[in-house]
Amino acid sequence: MKLFNEQNFINQLSIDCVIFGYKEQELKVLISKIKIETSIWTLPGGFIMQEESINNAAKRILEERTGLKDIYLEQFRVFGEPSRVNHEIYENIDSLKTEWLAKGILDENDINWLTKRFVSIGYYALVDINKVSPQKGMLDDSVEWYNVKELPKMIMDHNEMVLFALETLRQNLDQKLIGFNLLPETFTMKEVQELYEAVYDKPFARNNFQKKILDLNVLERLEKKFTGAANKAPYLYRFRNQ
Amino acid sequence: MKLFNEQNFINQLSIDCVIFGYKEQELKVLISKIKIETSIWTLPGGFIMQEESINNAAKRILEERTGLKDIYLEQFRVFGEPSRVNHEIYENIDSLKTEWLAKGILDENDINWLTKRFVSIGYYALVDINKVSPQKGMLDDSVEWYNVKELPKMIMDHNEMVLFALETLRQNLDQKLIGFNLLPETFTMKEVQELYEAVYDKPFARNNFQKKILDLNVLERLEKKFTGAANKAPYLYRFRNQ
Repeated sequence: MKLFNEQNFINQLSIDCVIFGYKEQELKVLISKIKIETSIWTLPGGFIMQEESINNAAKRILEERTGLKDIYLEQFRVFGEPSRVNHEIYENIDSLKTEWLAKGILDENDINWLTKRFVSIGYYALVDINKVSPQKGMLDDSVEWYNVKELPKMIMDHNEMVLFALETLRQNLDQKLIGFNLLPETFTMKEVQELYEAVYDKPFARNNFQKKILDLNVLERLEKKFTGAANKAPYLYRFRNQ
Repeated sequence: MKLFNEQNFINQLSIDCVIFGYKEQELKVLISKIKIETSIWTLPGGFIMQEESINNAAKRILEERTGLKDIYLEQFRVFGEPSRVNHEIYENIDSLKTEWLAKGILDENDINWLTKRFVSIGYYALVDINKVSPQKGMLDDSVEWYNVKELPKMIMDHNEMVLFALETLRQNLDQKLIGFNLLPETFTMKEVQELYEAVYDKPFARNNFQKKILDLNVLERLEKKFTGAANKAPYLYRFRNQ
């Protein structure tokens, strides 16, 4: 196929995406399983076309995996150790080659291209998990949401990438008011607090938290949420995009 | 020479360095002038060797230009627009080629390699300007400190790189206590305030500023600075490295 080559893509440079979603009080990350003899897990990733900006490459990769356009995404770090070659694929190279060549997915040139040293640009993305229908990549057996605290051992430095992305998310969550990208359009104050608690992995005092968020002056209060018990019904809020 | 090729360096990936120094109440950036027919200015930069981590490549480039090891440096952003090719060099390509080929610095292959699209990883560095003896790069006519507010128009997106680096420096200055890398080993509180004022390009109230810095509990107070007027002599401080 000669899919991967210097005419199509920049050599030795990749993008890996840490896609965060939030559901049932858990911060989750979308990861792929590649099936060889034993299963190996990876972050969704891809390469940069010669005519494409790195940000557009990241958007394209995210759209391929989530079905969503206009996702909140941000570069967070470049991973560039020379040792970051895909040992897991090297160790399985014969069975991989046999399988991929047999399926006609890749040819020998593609495999040589893929097994070089890559410098990888890490992007993190925040999505409303209910809107995502996860899509398998070309080499994937499955793609699933995992609790950020219960990720399997992934290839190369992908677990480390998640740690750096999570650290950046924590640093940015207040400053840039980006957390609302993880919530559905309307939400209760309790749900905002539970989201923050999941991201920071610690509890917050209810009154302080509520005051702090309301003082940001970015939420619009809507009608009460219908729960059946009218007197205890919490208000719904919506993020007021400036 | 075939200096630049895929055996030695990663293709289409570069590093550009925004080296900040501070002197006489001015935040300065070290930039190079390349002499072709008309002068063009660039940030110090370079490429990543096949066996080298990106951080070590940045350290090597910084040591080449400043003579210093162990510089404070940090990645701040990747610049990856497909349009970022070196138009200035393209426009001057004939005179450049003649000059560089004549001097035996580069050959045709090198020039082809250099004029491709590059994705560039931006690093910023903080140095004690008094310790630096700026060194010219291979293609430089001169290398000099410029006030960050009075930079000439540089090639490609290098002026934009400085703006992003400055924004990151401002965000990090308090949080990470990195400003002291720009000062000599001992300094007065007035000098710290003047540094912060140069970085943020605005004045701070003396008493508040002094209290805030002392409350950080990272400075060690030394003897008074000898000024000749003993009763007004300010204390010297040193950054206490944890």
